[in-house]
Amino acid sequence: MVCSINKTEKPTLSDPILIEGLPGIGFVANIAALHLIKELKAVKFASIFSSAFQDFAVTTGDGTARSPINELYYVKSANGGRDLIIWYGNTQALTTVGQYELVGKVLDIAQELGCKFVVSIGGFKKDEAVAVPGIYSTATDLETMQQALDLGTKVMVGHVFGIAGLSVGLAQIRELKGFSLLVDTPGMNPDVNAARYALLTLGKYLNLNVDLTNLEASGDEIKSMLESFGIVRSITEEKKKEEQQLRWFI
Amino acid sequence: MVCSINKTEKPTLSDPILIEGLPGIGFVANIAALHLIKELKAVKFASIFSSAFQDFAVTTGDGTARSPINELYYVKSANGGRDLIIWYGNTQALTTVGQYELVGKVLDIAQELGCKFVVSIGGFKKDEAVAVPGIYSTATDLETMQQALDLGTKVMVGHVFGIAGLSVGLAQIRELKGFSLLVDTPGMNPDVNAARYALLTLGKYLNLNVDLTNLEASGDEIKSMLESFGIVRSITEEKKKEEQQLRWFI
Amino acid sequence: MVCSINKTEKPTLSDPILIEGLPGIGFVANIAALHLIKELKAVKFASIFSSAFQDFAVTTGDGTARSPINELYYVKSANGGRDLIIWYGNTQALTTVGQYELVGKVLDIAQELGCKFVVSIGGFKKDEAVAVPGIYSTATDLETMQQALDLGTKVMVGHVFGIAGLSVGLAQIRELKGFSLLVDTPGMNPDVNAARYALLTLGKYLNLNVDLTNLEASGDEIKSMLESFGIVRSITEEKKKEEQQLRWFI
Amino acid sequence: MVCSINKTEKPTLSDPILIEGLPGIGFVANIAALHLIKELKAVKFASIFSSAFQDFAVTTGDGTARSPINELYYVKSANGGRDLIIWYGNTQALTTVGQYELVGKVLDIAQELGCKFVVSIGGFKKDEAVAVPGIYSTATDLETMQQALDLGTKVMVGHVFGIAGLSVGLAQIRELKGFSLLVDTPGMNPDVNAARYALLTLGKYLNLNVDLTNLEASGDEIKSMLESFGIVRSITEEKKKEEQQLRWFI
Repeated sequence: MVCSINKTEKPTLSDPILIEGLPGIGFVANIAALHLIKELKAVKFASIFSSAFQDFAVTTGDGTARSPINELYYVKSANGGRDLIIWYGNTQALTTVGQYELVGKVLDIAQELGCKFVVSIGGFKKDEAVAVPGIYSTATDLETMQQALDLGTKVMVGHVFGIAGLSVGLAQIRELKGFSLLVDTPGMNPDVNAARYALLTLGKYLNLNVDLTNLEASGDEIKSMLESFGIVRSITEEKKKEEQQLRWFI
Repeated sequence: MVCSINKTEKPTLSDPILIEGLPGIGFVANIAALHLIKELKAVKFASIFSSAFQDFAVTTGDGTARSPINELYYVKSANGGRDLIIWYGNTQALTTVGQYELVGKVLDIAQELGCKFVVSIGGFKKDEAVAVPGIYSTATDLETMQQALDLGTKVMVGHVFGIAGLSVGLAQIRELKGFSLLVDTPGMNPDVNAARYALLTLGKYLNLNVDLTNLEASGDEIKSMLESFGIVRSITEEKKKEEQQLRWFI
Repeated sequence: MVCSINKTEKPTLSDPILIEGLPGIGFVANIAALHLIKELKAVKFASIFSSAFQDFAVTTGDGTARSPINELYYVKSANGGRDLIIWYGNTQALTTVGQYELVGKVLDIAQELGCKFVVSIGGFKKDEAVAVPGIYSTATDLETMQQALDLGTKVMVGHVFGIAGLSVGLAQIRELKGFSLLVDTPGMNPDVNAARYALLTLGKYLNLNVDLTNLEASGDEIKSMLESFGIVRSITEEKKKEEQQLRWFI
Repeated sequence: MVCSINKTEKPTLSDPILIEGLPGIGFVANIAALHLIKELKAVKFASIFSSAFQDFAVTTGDGTARSPINELYYVKSANGGRDLIIWYGNTQALTTVGQYELVGKVLDIAQELGCKFVVSIGGFKKDEAVAVPGIYSTATDLETMQQALDLGTKVMVGHVFGIAGLSVGLAQIRELKGFSLLVDTPGMNPDVNAARYALLTLGKYLNLNVDLTNLEASGDEIKSMLESFGIVRSITEEKKKEEQQLRWFI
């Protein structure tokens, strides 16, 4: 089974940009992606399940089951800009191999639809919350890096773990272009303010004015999803770090 | 090898319901499934082995070896009701990937036989034993959820780990219908009383009167199987929980 | 890669018996298999490598490298008895999945050569060494169990971990016959005495008189192999046990 | 995905020798390989990515992303000697299975290009640094071992972990020839002096005079790569050792 994909539609897109928005530090990407989906009335066209997701079901308020899932949505540009593919979900994969597989499958689908550019979003852990968080970038190439810097980002120094890093890394390997937007966040809870800055920066790049009035509602939705999934970020992140050390043996 | 299946028969079934009955908390599903097999004279038609099962053999009283195994049985309805596929075994898979693979294979077989409905059974851990345990459900959809509630169950809140959750979650993904029956149990030992309530509720749904006189004997059989497999639930369950935390990293 | 097999010959064998002799508790099987290979002038016909073996090379006294490996040998019967396939090696697989894969591949090869009977050998951990160790069996079926008991063995009670258990368990699943011979051993060091009793019992079953005069030399050879592989049994076995507990979650 | 290979060229080579130069103890192989690539103006012809590499991206000084990667370079001999294939990278695989897969793929490519000889380089951990480090070898066969000894090496005693050992071990299994050069190193930091002795010995074997004037620069480059990857050798190596113990269960 490993990674199974249900496509419900094959949209025709014009030079689409893939925007990664899975749960991660501060859930910055997750809130931003959900908000884009709601505000831009994005249309779901693919569901992705991986055997590297957690083996459980989670119940919603009305008793129906919810499984670990990733989804792809598309947005046709209204203002003559580029179309979007939004990658949303309630989980990353649980293993390194599963992460590679997942990113690989999503890039396969995006490339089939003509995508040549990837933006990943993430949180950059900071000890304290700040009103105006810094935004850091890494990119597939120097030219794209300059575009990211022109948006007001700073050069990222260090590692970009998980999907946010892998998306840009594997894009580079496939000779796609793209950058990461990593926003300062204490990272303990869904960080609506960080998501706001991610969306402002992304909007600048896309020439897209996203209404942020209801962003708190998107944050609340993510928060209630997280609570239903029983995710305790603070503990697991620390464990993850130790594990990263162990897994990088030489 | 991963998952290998020996089919000894391909039964012709009428709109069959798949009933999951693997070992889990309180062994509620396991006792219930074994009892159904015995009382309904269910016929074994498939054996499933997975390389994600434990790598050992266990000896029985007479010295013959027993391996970790899953089995599928069928029951032709006597009273004009729906046929049954009973999924029984002495183990779940040891890894997340193995669990997905296992559920996927069983659903494949069930769907080939025309199955469109899945019932998973499980225990819901409670600190104390109660004479009349509560029964909780989660379902693939709202309509099926209502059917489960009409049986006297309450809405499940939280996670449904392991096979019980995955069966309903993957059924949903495959556009099958179904629900989980999760019965209160202290969960430390094979819980015959919880299995009784699972069977009563399931019987109501199936319009099936299963004789429960010999249920204690089914419980004893599970207990002696467990002892031969050296399963110490209390320890392993706690370990499992910690592991779940670790495996859900974000 | 997973499991790769180099066959150098395809022998024609008469109703051969597969004898499992990989390293395990007390190295009983390993010493016995090596001694059979030497005394019966067994001919190597296949090498098996698995990516579930350890990723290192070990140097021999003359500086040449030795890799983790399994090997199959055959013996044509001199006295009109049944031919033998001897499964020898310096390692088991490191993962459950690897163990299943390995046993599966070896049984595939053996069955292609007409094998219908499997004998696995192992140690049964006892706190103290005894002059005349007990021998315990488990078997694929009652008739074969009786044959094992007629050799003077007792009924094994409990688990048979690793290759010794899996060989008989998977043989049973494939509708082959066979039994395990598990000899009392303190298990800390290569146990020549336990191997002697394993060979005496096996010889009785096979109607085969194996000269045991040089058995100490076989034990020494295993010991020096073990030392070169840096195997510290006492520690690893304890760790293994803990791991078994963890891996059997329900 | 597991292991994916991008070949940009298929060079025609004359009896090429594969030289392994991945990060390991003291980064001896890594510095030596990078220096050879620079001094001999080696041409990159293949990139290898594995899902068993770490799932992150690392940023460089200018903000562009760098992914875990392995690369193959070739060198056409200028002086009528044998051509070279240099295997360079910033990581080994994180799992045993990944290591086997990786070595297997590289040997596949090398053999397609006519390679029949493999040299792996590594560090041999010593408690103190020495001005003139000892060099130890292991080889696929006695004749090759003698060639290695003739270069002034001593017989290696013990285990050769990871890629350095696996390269020679799997070469032997494929009936290729080759040896390991393992240089004394305290192993805590990139050890330029150890790399110097590895290159001197290798140069003697290849009849190749590599200019070592700029070796410090190669060491610095490796060091800055390591710092960007956040590799803390001392910790991870200790962890690795413990893990090796655990993984070798019997």
